[in-house]
Parts: sequence; C-alpha cells; structure tokens
Amino acid sequence: MSETPGSAALREEAALREEAAKLDAADGLAAKRAEFVLDDTVYLDGNSLGALPAGVAERVADVIGRQWGGLRIRSWDESGWWTAPERIGDRIAPLVGAAQGQIVVGDSTSVNVFKALVAAVRIARGSGDHPEGGRDEIVVDATTFPTDGYIAESAARLTGCRLIPVAPADVPGVLGERTAAVLLNHADYRTGRLHDLAGLTAAVHAAGALVVWDLCHTAGALPVGLDEHGVDLAVGCTYKYLNGGPGSPAYLYVRRELQDRFDSPLPGWNSHAEPFGMRPEFEAVDGARRGRVGTPDILSMLALEAALDVWDGVRVEAVRAKSLALTDFFLRCVEAYVPAGRVEPVTPRAHAERGSQVALRCPDAGDVMKRLIGQGVVGDYRAPDVLRFGFTPLYVSFADAERAARVLARTLD
Amino acid sequence: MSETPGSAALREEAALREEAAKLDAADGLAAKRAEFVLDDTVYLDGNSLGALPAGVAERVADVIGRQWGGLRIRSWDESGWWTAPERIGDRIAPLVGAAQGQIVVGDSTSVNVFKALVAAVRIARGSGDHPEGGRDEIVVDATTFPTDGYIAESAARLTGCRLIPVAPADVPGVLGERTAAVLLNHADYRTGRLHDLAGLTAAVHAAGALVVWDLCHTAGALPVGLDEHGVDLAVGCTYKYLNGGPGSPAYLYVRRELQDRFDSPLPGWNSHAEPFGMRPEFEAVDGARRGRVGTPDILSMLALEAALDVWDGVRVEAVRAKSLALTDFFLRCVEAYVPAGRVEPVTPRAHAERGSQVALRCPDAGDVMKRLIGQGVVGDYRAPDVLRFGFTPLYVSFADAERAARVLARTLD
Repeated sequence: MSETPGSAALREEAALREEAAKLDAADGLAAKRAEFVLDDTVYLDGNSLGALPAGVAERVADVIGRQWGGLRIRSWDESGWWTAPERIGDRIAPLVGAAQGQIVVGDSTSVNVFKALVAAVRIARGSGDHPEGGRDEIVVDATTFPTDGYIAESAARLTGCRLIPVAPADVPGVLGERTAAVLLNHADYRTGRLHDLAGLTAAVHAAGALVVWDLCHTAGALPVGLDEHGVDLAVGCTYKYLNGGPGSPAYLYVRRELQDRFDSPLPGWNSHAEPFGMRPEFEAVDGARRGRVGTPDILSMLALEAALDVWDGVRVEAVRAKSLALTDFFLRCVEAYVPAGRVEPVTPRAHAERGSQVALRCPDAGDVMKRLIGQGVVGDYRAPDVLRFGFTPLYVSFADAERAARVLARTLD
Repeated sequence: MSETPGSAALREEAALREEAAKLDAADGLAAKRAEFVLDDTVYLDGNSLGALPAGVAERVADVIGRQWGGLRIRSWDESGWWTAPERIGDRIAPLVGAAQGQIVVGDSTSVNVFKALVAAVRIARGSGDHPEGGRDEIVVDATTFPTDGYIAESAARLTGCRLIPVAPADVPGVLGERTAAVLLNHADYRTGRLHDLAGLTAAVHAAGALVVWDLCHTAGALPVGLDEHGVDLAVGCTYKYLNGGPGSPAYLYVRRELQDRFDSPLPGWNSHAEPFGMRPEFEAVDGARRGRVGTPDILSMLALEAALDVWDGVRVEAVRAKSLALTDFFLRCVEAYVPAGRVEPVTPRAHAERGSQVALRCPDAGDVMKRLIGQGVVGDYRAPDVLRFGFTPLYVSFADAERAARVLARTLD
C-alpha cells in the first residue's frame, strides 16, 4: 500500500519534533529558561520586549519599599543610586565586548543617538561648530529604524551638516573628506540582516570620520566586539535581548580614547565634574560619566540591573551559537511545513549576515500575526508586509521554534 | 521667686508645641499623611525626593508581574503603556493650572529644558535656524539650578545664540528685539525665593520673546497658573512635591496655541504622526505628544501615575495655604529657639516671594545637617552654606516643624 501525502507530512513533523527534543536536551543554555517568568506561549518577540527575568519583581519591591520608602533621600548614597548609570554600564560592557569604564546607562536610545552623533561630528571637526569647508556630512543607514534617521536629521540641522541616507552596503562609496560621522545599525530591525561592523568601521575610519553603531538588535544576542573593532561610539536599548523591561534605560558607549573629546550636546548636571558643587560654569567630568545628563531614573534602572543577573555565567559566544542553531532550525521547519511561495524569508541564510530574528514576508502579514498570537505564538508585524520572529537564546527552545513554524503553517493554510 | 531664663524657654516651648497640636488638629490635609509610608523621622527633604505614597508598591508589582510578566508585548496596548506619557501629563495638568492636552511626561528635566529652549528659539525666530540679524539671545536666570544653565548654554551654542545670564529681577532690563527665549525658575532651589511668574511672563511677551519656566520647586506646592498667565513652555521634575520616586520622568508643557509650531530638536519616533508606519520621513504628530521622543520608561512612569493618586480630592490652593502656614510657623519656632544671629533665613518673609522651603544660612551648614539627620530631622545641604528644609503639605505636620526647629537649636548649641 503506497503512502499518502498526509502520512509523509506526519512523518516529517515527527522527525522535526524528535530533532527539536534532541537539540533541547543537548542545549547548554536550556536551564536559563527557568530564570524567566514564562508560560505556554511561544514567545518570539524578545526582539521587541524581552521576557521578565524572575528576580526583577523582588528587587524592585526592595528598591521601592526599603530604599525609597525607608531610607528615602539617603539612598542616593547608601543604596548606590547615584553611581547606578556607570555601574550598570559596566555590567553591559562584557556583553558588547567593551572594557570597563566606557558605558553609561540612561535616557532613551533616541536621546543617546543624539548625544553620540553631535559629539561625533564635533570630534571629527576637531574644534569649532561651523568651520568653513570642514567636515559637514552625516551618513545614515537609509533602512534604519526610523527614530535614528529622524534624530540624525536633527543632529545634522543643528550642527550645520548635510544628511546622506544610503543603504549600508553603499556606505563606503559615499565616504570622503567631508564625512563627519556615520550612523549605522548593527542589525536591520525589519529584515534581521546583520551588517559588517568590523568592515564598515574600518571604512569610516579610513575616511577620517567617526562611526556610531546602534546595537539595539544585537546586544545580548551575539558578540559585538566594540573594543576589538575600534568602534567610536555606540548606543542601544536594554529592553530587547537584555530583558530590562518596557522602555528601560538605554546606554551609550564612548571609546576610552575619545572620552576627553566627548563634547555632549546635553551637558546636564550629572555630567559635571563636581555635580554637587552647584557651580554656574560647566566642567565636564572625566570618563564615561560624561554621557550622563539629568537625574537617573532609578526604578527602571535598578530593574534593569536585576534583569542582568541572568547573564551570570553566560558566554555571549554560546548565545550566538544557539541563536544561529535556532534560526537555522526554524527556517528548516518553515520550509518543511509552509507551502512553497506562501512566505518569503528576507533574513539572510548566511550566518555572517544574520542577527537573531527571522523575518518572513507575506502580503497579509498583519492579519497572519494576529491569528498567530491568538494561537499562542507571539511574534510581531512590521509594516507593510513583514512577520518578525525574534529568538532569545536564553529562553527560547528548539521545541518553541518547531511549534511556531507548525502553527504558522496551519495559520497560512 | 523670680523666674529663671530656663523656665521662660520651657514655657515658650510648651506654648509652641500646644500651638502646633492645635494647628494639626485643624488641618484639613492632615489625613493625607496616612497615604504615605513614613516613620518617626521629620522628613523635610521632599523638595529633593518626595516620600513614598503607599499605593506605589502594589501598582508597580502589578505592572511587573501581570503586565510585563504575563501580557508582555501586549501591554503596550492592553495595559495602556503606549499612551502613558500624555495620560499622566493630563493628571499633572490641574496641579499646574493647565487644561488637558498640553503636557507629556518623559525624559529628564534637563532633556526637557533642551527641547523647550531650542523649540522656543525656533518659534521666536519664525523660521529658519540662523537668520541674519534675527533674535539671537537666550536669557537665563544666573542663579538657576546649574543644569538649566548648562543646557541653556548648549541650546544657545547649537542655535547660534548668545547666552545672557542675569538675576531674575534684572530680566526685564535685558529684554529686547534680539531676545529669542528666556529660561526661568519659578522658585530658586537654594533660597526658596518664589519668582513673579505672571509679571516676568508678561515682560518677556512684551519683548516678543518666549518664556520657559522650570517648575521643579513649585509644582505640587503652590498654584502655578500656566494657562492663566499665558506661559509658553514649562518643564518640571516629578520626584519632589509630586512624589513620583527617585529620578521619575519629568514633564513638558507646550501651550496649545504653540503646539503646531513646536519644532523639537529631539524628534524621536514617539513624536511621529504615525509611529508604527516606520516611515523614513519625519512628520510630527499633533498636540502635546510632539514633545515625546523615544520609548517611554514604563516602570518609572506607572510608579509616578500611582503616586499621583494622593492628589485625589486635593485642591492645590489648600496645599499652598498649609505650606505658607508651615513655613511661617517654622520660621517663628526657629526665631524662638535658635540664638539670634546663629542662622540667617534667606527665604523671603513675604508670602508672594516664598516657595515651600525655608533656607537658613550658617557657616557650618554641612556639618550641622549631618548632625540633624543623625537626630531624625532630615533636610539637606546646598554648598557652600545653606541648610534647606522643604515642607510638603501633604505629609508634613506643624508638630514636625516645631520639632525640627527645636532639634536644630539643640544641634547649633
């Protein structure tokens, strides 16, 4: 008796489920999942909002009840509130390949993009704000997450620069002696494409300009190597793969050699050499703290600090290996389950060009995602036609990947 | 037998303590104290960090556990995260005399000063960034809290303006056709002096310029009357008399008539007309939301929202009446208890010139404050020689005021 198409599909599904079980059994990061608050949902939206690490609630309760409620103002010293921005920056540093003393946490990503770009233009120009004939161009990734582009336009306007939006691959072709600064995303928020941080940084430096990298979609998902590749400035959010919570404070990296020349457009009292001296003249503090602005947002910041505990004992190289294995496996499952042509993967197959998400294009993506979510598979939709599935290796399993592809196929059917 | 000086002092103390008890018994706001987490400390530092409102811990636990932990990404819609900045702005509005739709919450005070000042300069100039011979001066309170001055200097530098620092009383004398914007504090952070918001606003308008008021030391302590006095823009923190928690998000007021011309130097995706359209071209949203920048910091923001519940049923005029009665009474107690000449009150006696704090100058202020805190009376010290005592009418009693003066006298003895 010949086999029916249906039973072939069932055998394929059984094989993939068995493979998922084996991969999960061999996964050195599998135990990390228990450090998060999760349920039966397949949560593939950690590239938008990371899941809740289990230790956050208790820590924040202590910050509110004992530190604020009991110690009140004394907590600025006694509970380490005042030094939180640089202390938590140093917790993020190893995840992005930075030595200590180069990262401060605070403000939103948008605000940090502004600080970084204006400061980069000033350093590139050496001195003065509007030198005649000097470097007067800011290059920006034309496919960037929109806020970076809007802020770059503002930075250009305020520093008398022209904004040049180009695709990342075309960046080297537009660099020259007029280039002041270049703002790039390490991974494209829509397609998940990973850009060549080392190569593009070298190209920008060869033109005598400075580069600002936006790490929102890579920090905590793969090694970044900021120091190794000589990146000048970088920014990133902490609520995606770093699981800091909704709208948790962003961070700013300023390479040590540039810190003395980092001339912030937002020189708040927290970046003063003597913040409690209350002096009318501004004198910038040394080091990464120069990137601070106003009073740090303590509740959100200390929630982030607690969230970073899940990284204890985790090597980011291991995270990257699992991320690639997860996205490879998910793409294989999609290929096996989803009728050919129904979706088009827009995330590159090549590992060197892939972040930690898989983006699938389909014309009815908005509706499809709604139905997926209704069936317990949570990704997200980006206009006009992209389904995004983010894979956070600390808590997503291979079984999750298989189930997501299976439910997607059923939904598309 | 003639009375000894000691017994006269004891009688005076008994009389003041009795008066305090009567004033507390007649205080219509006295019951509000139970809505805060307090202990035996006399907490007179609410002008730096407001005490913890009792409802905050439970609300934040729900935000973390149920909204973030359970609903995760769905909370941006379902838990009202996305609209929090303008919703909470509308909660603050009645406290500062603003109609709905003119305030958004987010970022630090410093960042909001930057937005407000650059936008004010742009509106004052009408169009273009560097017109020849146009308005090119920013006037700033020379006695301002330092961060305002530093940020004003940056705003001036980036908009091609000259910064003119003068004492608030001298502002009218320097205004003219070159004035673009004026940044003023409603109350002086060091002396507690209240400035003439109505009169100075009118003077700035008469010169054709715009005024930005910093309300950090008045919002929640006295009526501000932003709409009534035609203020253009205003900023303030929420962690002093609004009790929002350490470093809780600040706010920005943009008068309705100016909103269409509010051209932010920080045009993040949250201020886009269609934030999820992910369009490369910036198009500003209408209304107060134009003051938003990046993703709002939800934990801190919703803690603030819970903290604002203590204002239910409270008229800010009643708060002002109690504030003046408290500071009057404290000054009387200081006069009665502290040897003449040992401290010099620098806060004006005239009610129209007094905020909600009392500042006393004494040469050894730093040491004195340390000893006061050791005895359970918490104020703070501002370099070089000022003792600050902030009176938050929602939770400070007349008995607190008497005890603070009594312990101060003992400490100074």
